[in-house]
Amino acid sequence: MLFPPTLRQLMQQLERLPGIGTRSAQRLALYLLRRPEEEIVRLAESLVQARQRTRLCQRCFFLSEDDLCEICRDPSRDADTICVVADPRDVVAIERLEQYRGLYHVLHGLISPAEGVQPEDLKIGELVERVRTERPREVILATPANVEGDATALYIARLLKPMGVRVTRIAYGMPVGGELDYADAATLGYALSGRQEL
Amino acid sequence: MLFPPTLRQLMQQLERLPGIGTRSAQRLALYLLRRPEEEIVRLAESLVQARQRTRLCQRCFFLSEDDLCEICRDPSRDADTICVVADPRDVVAIERLEQYRGLYHVLHGLISPAEGVQPEDLKIGELVERVRTERPREVILATPANVEGDATALYIARLLKPMGVRVTRIAYGMPVGGELDYADAATLGYALSGRQEL
Repeated sequence: MLFPPTLRQLMQQLERLPGIGTRSAQRLALYLLRRPEEEIVRLAESLVQARQRTRLCQRCFFLSEDDLCEICRDPSRDADTICVVADPRDVVAIERLEQYRGLYHVLHGLISPAEGVQPEDLKIGELVERVRTERPREVILATPANVEGDATALYIARLLKPMGVRVTRIAYGMPVGGELDYADAATLGYALSGRQEL
Repeated sequence: MLFPPTLRQLMQQLERLPGIGTRSAQRLALYLLRRPEEEIVRLAESLVQARQRTRLCQRCFFLSEDDLCEICRDPSRDADTICVVADPRDVVAIERLEQYRGLYHVLHGLISPAEGVQPEDLKIGELVERVRTERPREVILATPANVEGDATALYIARLLKPMGVRVTRIAYGMPVGGELDYADAATLGYALSGRQEL
């Protein structure tokens, strides 16, 4: 004897979601049973609607409900700069700063031979094409500071530099307020090798 | 600028679920966008179906898609014994043992003045009524070993004992294979006070 069939099915589907194990799936499903039916219907509708309506911006591959995302449609953005990120969440993180006024390009991943991710699996060809047609003055690579992020940045830089565009990468090093003593070796390594003349 | 509206709405709804914070809600939503649409539709349908079809067994208040749950409908179960648990998951845990052949009664919570849970909020009145009409020989209290579990067990025992039914509580103490050295004080306390004559 276990839980009744429809509930069991829901638990099994929840269990397949990332970061949700058997126990959290059970807890979630039992929680949802106790909520008003309208709330569950709304959640179900949101799931399907978000899946159906959200697509990738045809220009920068950020998420959008239209052909072009809000940023690409904004005429006040500076089209001379393209900031390249791995994930849509990185766009949101940079936008929160309210400091960057250029455009973005979302790769949707990083080159990773270990995980079988090749350059062709990412929006790299599209970036090269964009640089060719839009002719920005600068491409800022904001991939993370790790093996995959470094490899992806180097790969893109090698493609773009011959095209005459300025290619930069964001700075990596000690976080503000971080103590040397507590920094991991990798961060400290980036901080040292990225040192600048005073 | 943030994520597009329907996606943002989904993230906000996921964020309200227990154990899911802002970051996991974002991760989950972005994961769901990458899944095939049929899979998302199936998940949405499961949500609504589980919510609509699952209700409480009218006799024991375990979960069921019918008036009576699978256990209460099974004529081979021993109706002389009722095992009282706090949560539907406890029924599944005991059933996994394949050792207990009696019936259950799910309280759907524990008495907790701190959280404002009164006896009337639980299926305690229904248990008393069941004992009155079904006249079982034994009621086994399987509430957890903590302040609320103890209080609930004592409260129920005081109500049922005058009715002439045998009231027992499952044993609490050192888990099998557990070392005294590593046991928390509460468990060790239960083990000591529950000691038995050899």
